[in-house]
Amino acid sequence: MRYDFGSDNTAGMAPSALDALIQANTDYARAYGSDDVTARAADQIRQRLDADADVRFVFSGTAANSIVLSMLANPHEAVLAHHAAHICTDETGAPGFFGQGVGLIGLPGFSGKIESRALQAWLEEPVVGHRQPPAALSLTQSTEYGTVYLEEELRHLIEPVKACGYGVHMDGARLANAAAHGFDLKQIARLGVDALVFGGAKAGANCVEAIVLFDKALGRRLDNRLKQAGQTASKARFVAAPLLGLLESGEWETGAAHANQMAQKLARGIVTRSPFTLAHPVEANAVFVRMPVEAHERLNAAGWACYRFDDGSVRFVCSWATTHAAVEEILDAIAGLA
Amino acid sequence: MRYDFGSDNTAGMAPSALDALIQANTDYARAYGSDDVTARAADQIRQRLDADADVRFVFSGTAANSIVLSMLANPHEAVLAHHAAHICTDETGAPGFFGQGVGLIGLPGFSGKIESRALQAWLEEPVVGHRQPPAALSLTQSTEYGTVYLEEELRHLIEPVKACGYGVHMDGARLANAAAHGFDLKQIARLGVDALVFGGAKAGANCVEAIVLFDKALGRRLDNRLKQAGQTASKARFVAAPLLGLLESGEWETGAAHANQMAQKLARGIVTRSPFTLAHPVEANAVFVRMPVEAHERLNAAGWACYRFDDGSVRFVCSWATTHAAVEEILDAIAGLA
Amino acid sequence: MRYDFGSDNTAGMAPSALDALIQANTDYARAYGSDDVTARAADQIRQRLDADADVRFVFSGTAANSIVLSMLANPHEAVLAHHAAHICTDETGAPGFFGQGVGLIGLPGFSGKIESRALQAWLEEPVVGHRQPPAALSLTQSTEYGTVYLEEELRHLIEPVKACGYGVHMDGARLANAAAHGFDLKQIARLGVDALVFGGAKAGANCVEAIVLFDKALGRRLDNRLKQAGQTASKARFVAAPLLGLLESGEWETGAAHANQMAQKLARGIVTRSPFTLAHPVEANAVFVRMPVEAHERLNAAGWACYRFDDGSVRFVCSWATTHAAVEEILDAIAGLA
Amino acid sequence: MRYDFGSDNTAGMAPSALDALIQANTDYARAYGSDDVTARAADQIRQRLDADADVRFVFSGTAANSIVLSMLANPHEAVLAHHAAHICTDETGAPGFFGQGVGLIGLPGFSGKIESRALQAWLEEPVVGHRQPPAALSLTQSTEYGTVYLEEELRHLIEPVKACGYGVHMDGARLANAAAHGFDLKQIARLGVDALVFGGAKAGANCVEAIVLFDKALGRRLDNRLKQAGQTASKARFVAAPLLGLLESGEWETGAAHANQMAQKLARGIVTRSPFTLAHPVEANAVFVRMPVEAHERLNAAGWACYRFDDGSVRFVCSWATTHAAVEEILDAIAGLA
Repeated sequence: MRYDFGSDNTAGMAPSALDALIQANTDYARAYGSDDVTARAADQIRQRLDADADVRFVFSGTAANSIVLSMLANPHEAVLAHHAAHICTDETGAPGFFGQGVGLIGLPGFSGKIESRALQAWLEEPVVGHRQPPAALSLTQSTEYGTVYLEEELRHLIEPVKACGYGVHMDGARLANAAAHGFDLKQIARLGVDALVFGGAKAGANCVEAIVLFDKALGRRLDNRLKQAGQTASKARFVAAPLLGLLESGEWETGAAHANQMAQKLARGIVTRSPFTLAHPVEANAVFVRMPVEAHERLNAAGWACYRFDDGSVRFVCSWATTHAAVEEILDAIAGLA
Repeated sequence: MRYDFGSDNTAGMAPSALDALIQANTDYARAYGSDDVTARAADQIRQRLDADADVRFVFSGTAANSIVLSMLANPHEAVLAHHAAHICTDETGAPGFFGQGVGLIGLPGFSGKIESRALQAWLEEPVVGHRQPPAALSLTQSTEYGTVYLEEELRHLIEPVKACGYGVHMDGARLANAAAHGFDLKQIARLGVDALVFGGAKAGANCVEAIVLFDKALGRRLDNRLKQAGQTASKARFVAAPLLGLLESGEWETGAAHANQMAQKLARGIVTRSPFTLAHPVEANAVFVRMPVEAHERLNAAGWACYRFDDGSVRFVCSWATTHAAVEEILDAIAGLA
Repeated sequence: MRYDFGSDNTAGMAPSALDALIQANTDYARAYGSDDVTARAADQIRQRLDADADVRFVFSGTAANSIVLSMLANPHEAVLAHHAAHICTDETGAPGFFGQGVGLIGLPGFSGKIESRALQAWLEEPVVGHRQPPAALSLTQSTEYGTVYLEEELRHLIEPVKACGYGVHMDGARLANAAAHGFDLKQIARLGVDALVFGGAKAGANCVEAIVLFDKALGRRLDNRLKQAGQTASKARFVAAPLLGLLESGEWETGAAHANQMAQKLARGIVTRSPFTLAHPVEANAVFVRMPVEAHERLNAAGWACYRFDDGSVRFVCSWATTHAAVEEILDAIAGLA
Repeated sequence: MRYDFGSDNTAGMAPSALDALIQANTDYARAYGSDDVTARAADQIRQRLDADADVRFVFSGTAANSIVLSMLANPHEAVLAHHAAHICTDETGAPGFFGQGVGLIGLPGFSGKIESRALQAWLEEPVVGHRQPPAALSLTQSTEYGTVYLEEELRHLIEPVKACGYGVHMDGARLANAAAHGFDLKQIARLGVDALVFGGAKAGANCVEAIVLFDKALGRRLDNRLKQAGQTASKARFVAAPLLGLLESGEWETGAAHANQMAQKLARGIVTRSPFTLAHPVEANAVFVRMPVEAHERLNAAGWACYRFDDGSVRFVCSWATTHAAVEEILDAIAGLA
């Protein structure tokens, strides 16, 4: 089976990520994140976001998202999110585990973007004792369906939430792809996002995501919180190093730009060469295709890993590692299904 | 500040660990642990333990221990452990977090080994509704104070616990050092341990520990459990690879043997060249020294990181990376304190 | 505002419940449930269920349901239930709080009864790591929409669930009303239900529900579990006494029979005297009416408390205390809305 | 076995408590705490405390304490308390359950009162990532060993804690007995206590304690929190009524005064008529006696329930219901042990 398009976490580490990891493996270093590599990686992130935020590196996006949400909502409250958001569909209830039962309220919206009126309706619901009322909004940028929120769209979603005094989380597992599409990272803090998960793994690192707290008050004893949650690395330099490599080299950006371009190429090919249609606008690094079950099965049988999503379409994901040749090969395979 | 003896997690990755990580970084691979690297690393562990166990790789020992304990004891029950065990003193209450309030009962005993009679007394306590009764025993091998349980000692602790129908967990963060001292890994399953945490980081890997379930019934939907707990790596091959390197090369054993020898050398030097005494038998890779506060401070001021422990002694830890030269240098420094 | 039909928990204690409470208030008694009143109430329940079950009395149905579910499903698993079940819609996420994130899977089905094919479909779903797979089924008898499962219907739901090795919970907050409709309580254990919440409050007691464990293995250290969960009464006799009164007097049955008859009378009146239609079969003590928003508002404005439900219908609930006169009054009011 | 002195929860409801419960059992009432009885009881408490606080009624002291502590400390933080406090020794780890692992730090001090210097030492400990640092102080008034803090003693404990920005909880399960000893309830808010558990059960009610939040910011969506925690009564009037009866009649005070007097009588008798000595000052309603194991066993064998405590002394507790005759009888029994 070929995993080129199965997910953006089937690719390996990008060159600069591996180089930085090798570089970090010299001499002794303080454990638990007090090392220089960790400090430099945090600085790189703060620069990109143009914000004096608290930054910590954890092992997984599931943990990062859940820990942040546990800061924004109590167990008797809930988080508003797109119903197809990773926290709702792909994290095995982790927000409820880390947040001791915190609720998730799934909102509708085309192509992974939350519908503003649906959000508004929930914000206007009266608080009744027997339901978990919302306390935070979770946004995914780029979205689970490969689209990228415009700054204006985010503003429309965030403003009424902040007006209620609620918190805002952004899941940036694929933030690099959003940035490559033109999303200005410096707007995140300005728009009122309280906490961001800044993605590393899908951008070409190993297993690392950064928790970024713009609202530093959330971070009371953050190191204790992370340690208790099993997300403190003893040999922390090796967690931060691959992301540092990507950031210092600029490969975090160029890799995502390449991934997006490959997705464009793939999308164009599908539109022009196959009978299938695109299910969502292709703005980041994923292409969703409306394809009969049988066609999908034949593609799998031909050796290409790719998965059907909740909306019924089949997803193909590109990464820093996707080659032109692989795109052409899979296009041949898809065209041949007709 | 020099971190050579501050902990065994201040050292980097051992050569075979890094090599395996670099090797793993080729082509695409299935995510979430279904890859070949992960499978081979699990096999290596099963072979060493001579047991057909479930094996999974997680990011941190704190998480590994806590997740296993949550399988062995309910929130309204407690885990028996040495009062100086890592789970009691160094994990920020993680067992209670992962186990939703599961209790810890700290037992006494010399040099980190649980005193058999103290354990027995707890096992004989009547169960009363207003306290958390024990449901499991946690053992650390090698112990927090650098000693190694004999097989016979473990048998004396485990048998009465199993007779009560309780579970047994072994924290093997420094299992390699115990093995290098002569502890037979094949006895772990035979002695009745239900779940082991097989240490990677301190043995020369990056950030990885293996959860090993000898009692496979504990592992119902283990992958869901780990995913929910934020301990499932997307790019899983990179988590397992360094440990695979150590295991396939045998450096897991030789590195620990070297660490233990360096600890012996350091201990001999302290006894013969300094006015200070050893606080505990030196059987693994750590040396605990009775040393006045002032002497400790001067050692720190001279640039050597080392920490005072709960029993009042100062700990020096050796690793696969510790050099003869560094041992001699710190011995000079210690001798000079007198 | 008149609360006669707002809920079955707006009524007071039935005569035999209050009498038993007064009776229990003599002399000293052992605390924490070791008293005679508690023992007798447990016996009454075991007799009715014809089963040698573990019985405990707790303060609230929310707690009772959640504690039982935490025995049947791990945090990384989920409970299958009707989407309109109390645990899904009215307990503020309590199952997730007591179960540290345990999931709820809402199933469809007419009039509060789970659709068998929808259940079957979930049971056949492959277990994937990133979702919470089902581990238990929760049934409500009588249902949230005032219907009563036939024994055969229950068998069709329970059998495939048990065949998967999963547990079965029954929420019997209104079990008395189901029994009054003809449901044979002695079938509960025989059908394979593992744990029942035997309702007290809505049947005419104060604040008490009984946890009944047919599968006694679930009850390991049950008293510790309840104490930790804040559900152990110090002056326990006063919790059990009202339910004991109802059970020894038979008012548990006669009160529910009366409530069901009043619901029948109300339903007939609505059908014959108003332009509105019934939304669900009236089999227990609640009547659900399809009624325009404006009509509902006028009824509220006229002083009658009653609530609109998730299916859009308006609920009227009868209890042991509902009088013929009150039914006629509200029928006049409803008829007058036309 | 006679339970007159076994605990203050072996007594029944005091006359005014039962009367109020009977009174409350008329007509229909809004459920879930929106009723008049609940409102009046809350007012009574606010008056006594001379504070505009949020007041809610819950079923058990264990739940009340744990829920409040979960507002004051995060899971990765800890609560400072006397090592013999009810939350540390008698609640089966409930604070950790409700607080998802929140830690407890047991402080020393004579006769149940926290030693000021021990508290100070903990406040000065540096925060390190691998331990749960304190975030709140829990005080018990009157204490677990039957003593009553002076206002000045409380000030000495509370001030440094507030100076750290930490919260303060007071467990007032026996607050009535402290008040009867002269403790001015109006000082509680002024001293800086953030949240109080105002005791009902031991003061002569049924199963009810009040959560009182002086810091109203803690109470965000308190009703949701209580509902989720299984501590919301549907027929709430019956939970509040007994306490309302005690408060409106003044029996909350007179009952506690009587209990304290009976304890004084018992203590005098032990000092003058038995060979045994008092273990602690008798300031509230409990008498702790140093007594050989054999003497204690003979007393139990003679039919008197009484329990040995962690400090090795035997406890005798008086309540509103304790009679002069019973005190004399047990004194005869104790004198006869010599």
